This record gives sequence, structure tokens and C-alpha cells, in this order.
Amino acid sequence: MQWRELGDQPCSFSRTLAVIGDRWSLMILRDCFMKVRRFDEFHDRLGIGRPILTDRLKKLVDNFVLTKVAYQQHPIRHEYRLTQKGLDLYPVVMAIVHWGDVHMADRKGRPLLHHHLTCGHDFDPVLACSECRAEVGPREVTIRPGPGARNAVHLPPAAAPAAPRRRRVKAA
Amino acid sequence: MQWRELGDQPCSFSRTLAVIGDRWSLMILRDCFMKVRRFDEFHDRLGIGRPILTDRLKKLVDNFVLTKVAYQQHPIRHEYRLTQKGLDLYPVVMAIVHWGDVHMADRKGRPLLHHHLTCGHDFDPVLACSECRAEVGPREVTIRPGPGARNAVHLPPAAAPAAPRRRRVKAA
Repeated sequence: MQWRELGDQPCSFSRTLAVIGDRWSLMILRDCFMKVRRFDEFHDRLGIGRPILTDRLKKLVDNFVLTKVAYQQHPIRHEYRLTQKGLDLYPVVMAIVHWGDVHMADRKGRPLLHHHLTCGHDFDPVLACSECRAEVGPREVTIRPGPGARNAVHLPPAAAPAAPRRRRVKAA
Repeated sequence: MQWRELGDQPCSFSRTLAVIGDRWSLMILRDCFMKVRRFDEFHDRLGIGRPILTDRLKKLVDNFVLTKVAYQQHPIRHEYRLTQKGLDLYPVVMAIVHWGDVHMADRKGRPLLHHHLTCGHDFDPVLACSECRAEVGPREVTIRPGPGARNAVHLPPAAAPAAPRRRRVKAA
């Protein structure tokens, strides 16, 4: 499978990666959630080349994750703001940050603290069930094909029709 | 900044991307959570070249996300299983899937349904606060430097010391 085919797969994971699945796009998104908005700010903070930054910002705008808004008229200057579709990526960004906090922090501890204004406490993000609100782990979840399932490749092996196995020739 | 520097940044987001931030590693992880475990199964499902698959699996094992376990002795054959560190990536995978379900599904609907065994309902993952259990959105969160903060580049602009701006020469 080629990367350009990813967005056509009947798989929500692949389709998301087709939009945000390269590392610079994810780094740009992290900065967007820190209210970084202008090209030169992204450039200074991320230290990536301008052509790559231009390309990734265009891709995020083309996919309606960011929108380009004029903040100055003479001369015209634009900044990049998260759309609602972009804001909806917050759980992705927070889940990545939290895994790094738990598994990749050095001895000093985590680099950033997150404060929940609603309850007034520093917090960790928790993956919860929309129905019962309990924390959800992978062992408590089963998967089955939904209405948009098309072929077996992106279904769990147990849910997919058995594929013909290649025969393995036993070494002499 | 180069990719090899990502893991050394005082930023949990960058450090996580240094381990799982390429698309094939993320696709492999998606399959791991579907109980895919053997090299040939990954190869058949993902359709990527064996050298890339070998490289990505080795990287995930080297970073203790997967562990290699012998499932057969004569001849010896290994499979790849998620460690606890790997299982802790479940919120990342689920957040990516959910965004795709909401924003990238075609007219038929989502390809997979997730069922929460604990409460017995199909569910969506929700980002909740560890302290009050309410759903958390980006506008309800503030960030400040934590004990592991080192320099300004990975802090939000408002929390970082002002960097010297490059002077912009006005066009004649």
C-alpha cells in the first residue's frame, strides 16, 4: 500500500493518518493548540525549512483542519487558526502528550502541566466511555464491522473472512 | 530541527513522536490492538515492504512498546505482543480512530463499531479529566511549565520568555 492510498481505505485510522499522520503536521498541530498562529512563529519554534512548513500548512488548510485568516490588511498578512474539525483533534494531541509524560519524561518530571479550568485541578487526560463514563482499556472493548466496512484488510482478523494463507515450504 | 533530535526535546509530544510518530509504526500499532501478532500477518494486511516492516517492528521492540515472544520452537518462530507501555497507547489509537469516524467517514458510516464490555454499549471515546471526570475541551485547559521544562521552544508562547524577534526590513 502506498501513502496516497491511505485516505481511500475503509478505515478511520488510515483516513486520519492521511491528513495528520506525518510528524511535522502533528508538531504544527501541537503548536496550534498552544495558540501559535503565524508562519514565522511556527518557523522559529519548530526550526523546519520554510518549504516543508508551507506544504504542511497548505495541506492542513486544504483538509479544513486550519483556516487562513487575514490579521492585517496593509500589507496583507495571514494567520492560521484551528477550525472545529481541527479543535476536534485535541484528544489526539492530549493522548500523545500524556503517553510521553508517563513513559518518556526524564528524572525532572513532565515538561508541562495541564490545568482544568472547569474543576480547578491539574489533570491527566483519561479515555472514557461516552455511555457509562468509566475509564476504558483495550481489554474491555470488542470490535465488529460497522456500516462503512468494505473489505477484510482493515477489520480485526477474527471479524474478517479467512484469507487464503500462503503455503510455507518446509526447509529440507 | 532534525528528526533524530526529537527524542531529546523537553516535550512529551516530541518524545512520543520520536517513538511512534511515523505512519507505518502507527498502522502497525492499530493492527496490534486488533490482536495481529505475526510478521506475515502484518505484511499481508498492511502491504508494506518487508524491510520497512522489519525496521519498524525492531524500533517498537527496542523502545519496549512491543515484545518478541517465541510461539513455536522447531523451527523457532516469534510473534509481537504489546507490552504495558504499548497497551498504554490505546488512547492515542482510539482518538485517531474517533476523529476519522467523525470527520472522514463516507456516506455509509463508520467502518468499525466499538463495544464496551463493561457497560454493554457501543461507545465513542471521550477525553475526560482525571480529577472531575467531565469531558475536557481545549478551551477549558491552561498550560504552564512543569518540573521538566528546560527551554522556551516547547512552551506555549505566553508562558515562555520573549525571544528576540528578527527585524523585518520594510520593502521600498
